[in-house]
Amino acid sequence: MIEKLVRDRVKSLKPYVPGKSKEEIIRKYNLNPEDIIKLGSNENPWGCSKKIKEELLREIGNLHQYPEPVNPVLMEELGNFLDVPRENIIVGGDGADEIIDTLMRTFVDVGDEVIIPIPTFTQYRVSAHIHGANIRYGRYNKKKDFKLDVDSILDNITERTKIIFLCTPNNPTGNPIERKDIKKILESTEALVVVDHAYIEYSKDIYNVTKWALDYENLLILRTFSKIFGLAGARVGYGVANEEVINYMMRVKPVFSLTRLSQICTIAALRDREFFFYSREKGIESREILYRGLKKFKELKVYPSEANYLLVEIRNDMTSGEFCEELLKRGVIVRDCKSFEGLDGEYIRVSIGTFEEDRRFLEILKDIVS
Amino acid sequence: MIEKLVRDRVKSLKPYVPGKSKEEIIRKYNLNPEDIIKLGSNENPWGCSKKIKEELLREIGNLHQYPEPVNPVLMEELGNFLDVPRENIIVGGDGADEIIDTLMRTFVDVGDEVIIPIPTFTQYRVSAHIHGANIRYGRYNKKKDFKLDVDSILDNITERTKIIFLCTPNNPTGNPIERKDIKKILESTEALVVVDHAYIEYSKDIYNVTKWALDYENLLILRTFSKIFGLAGARVGYGVANEEVINYMMRVKPVFSLTRLSQICTIAALRDREFFFYSREKGIESREILYRGLKKFKELKVYPSEANYLLVEIRNDMTSGEFCEELLKRGVIVRDCKSFEGLDGEYIRVSIGTFEEDRRFLEILKDIVS
Repeated sequence: MIEKLVRDRVKSLKPYVPGKSKEEIIRKYNLNPEDIIKLGSNENPWGCSKKIKEELLREIGNLHQYPEPVNPVLMEELGNFLDVPRENIIVGGDGADEIIDTLMRTFVDVGDEVIIPIPTFTQYRVSAHIHGANIRYGRYNKKKDFKLDVDSILDNITERTKIIFLCTPNNPTGNPIERKDIKKILESTEALVVVDHAYIEYSKDIYNVTKWALDYENLLILRTFSKIFGLAGARVGYGVANEEVINYMMRVKPVFSLTRLSQICTIAALRDREFFFYSREKGIESREILYRGLKKFKELKVYPSEANYLLVEIRNDMTSGEFCEELLKRGVIVRDCKSFEGLDGEYIRVSIGTFEEDRRFLEILKDIVS
Repeated sequence: MIEKLVRDRVKSLKPYVPGKSKEEIIRKYNLNPEDIIKLGSNENPWGCSKKIKEELLREIGNLHQYPEPVNPVLMEELGNFLDVPRENIIVGGDGADEIIDTLMRTFVDVGDEVIIPIPTFTQYRVSAHIHGANIRYGRYNKKKDFKLDVDSILDNITERTKIIFLCTPNNPTGNPIERKDIKKILESTEALVVVDHAYIEYSKDIYNVTKWALDYENLLILRTFSKIFGLAGARVGYGVANEEVINYMMRVKPVFSLTRLSQICTIAALRDREFFFYSREKGIESREILYRGLKKFKELKVYPSEANYLLVEIRNDMTSGEFCEELLKRGVIVRDCKSFEGLDGEYIRVSIGTFEEDRRFLEILKDIVS
């Protein structure tokens, strides 16, 4: 009886496959927490700012009160960090996922179109599908280290195109999109171009095209506290765009979704710029260690990356699932890429670890691959 | 240019008007935090369990990791609290609001119908509107202390009815819906009946019809940690329904929306049953104090309530807005009910305070009304 009530879109939905959590692996393989090396979810292996603790304790006394829908202290700190006015920022309480959902709620009617070059972050597709969009796929070109195929975007633009998702550096491939290509797309369409900068702080320029949001009417920059700030567990993401876009989005954004404790975490993290730059420096170093280490295995092909992870192609007779299972047995969590549409072949994604984790991981790899 | 991209539904949306936050009032009226009496958002004036603090500190070291999408410890504690299997529970990371949104995403296609008796919690309407539903309004009958008019529901059921929202005790009126009326509606339709029990712990029976969710295929019970558990700032709500409903909803629920810290808060709160029952006893006593106190003002009509707030009709020549403004100047935040559709007249909603806050509020009232 219930099935009759359910939307057809939901019946046909492939659910999002998240990276495995540490807790899950500990339970499944009966391992010690200390033995787990988690390189599966692009997290910051150095944790988060130590200054959060003190601030958090102060806030416990306010937990019974609803959060402020817009926290002015957070907006000010974030505006300073980005050097953009707070009127151009929207903050979400479920990481960038909430901003993506809010974009759909603001712009996408059933039958409208969304362009997604693949392989890329799965959530664009999931959210678009739930909200009734028709999805047109562009591509990142495997033969050119997954460089964006700009024509694959331009050729898909129609009168019903509402949103185009560009991820730079792209997840899970790690490659950046060139500025001139973003510009070309922005100027070829009236659709909203969403540039996902979730990993931008690990690339050459931590701001990249963020400030273009002040100049282009149809650009939204997506950013997050889940990566370099080390706050994936607090679920805070944000968008930067012109005021009109922000104002429309605020009408449909969940009002209270950003918890009191997450607001505090974010403010404290923004004030600890030292930890931020420490994470960036160490993170880039860790990526280089892994890149050099992985390159030595002749059965693996590792792609260059400007993010905090590396895409690795498995070129022996193992599937990515078998490969991941072998690693899991030895306490290493990496991401099996088979849930990413548009990746033909066998791929895994390896996130940066502490230098010690990198070393142990590369050592463990020798058991599995040559 | 952007306006052309925005959905018509968003252009016509009346945004949700939340109760005013303490921080906002402190800034606006330049008051001391200690002088504010916040009776505007149906929060627990005794805060939350003191046991949360210690647990929270332990979790800070995990903040850089994504939360588990479903926390098995939380599910077990919640299952024990409700005495229902965990397969019948869905937990949301933006309070009951997320569960309401998830219901829409699961069941409502554009043009489907949702029945909402008014006056009631505004979020049902807002979420339904965003998701393209046509809303049919039933009513709580003012002439009978806002008792649900069952026929106003039954008469609105059509072949396109997907969801019927019943809030008991109802917000902002405080009255319960009789079990026989819920039963009659459940058995008159194949649509999903959502019974919102956000305030049920302050009524005569803290479970009320929760367990009916195991027997009826088309019933979802909505509950929350924001009220008696004193965790409005942590944004955790949940639904109880048969497994089929839960499984469909899990396909479209935001995957990571429940933060690590909120998971910890909820587990610790569920384990402190002493604080729970303390809050219930004190809360009901506070409601009685306010009810008796408010009844003495001949210019006010106070309605009986089984929740942690009281609906009050202003029967002098002041509007509810003017009345609230006078209270705000004196540091008291109550809820102006003019944003609730279906309330003709001038109403405010007063939440329970500590006994001392109740006393000060009733004293301050004498300045404003006779």
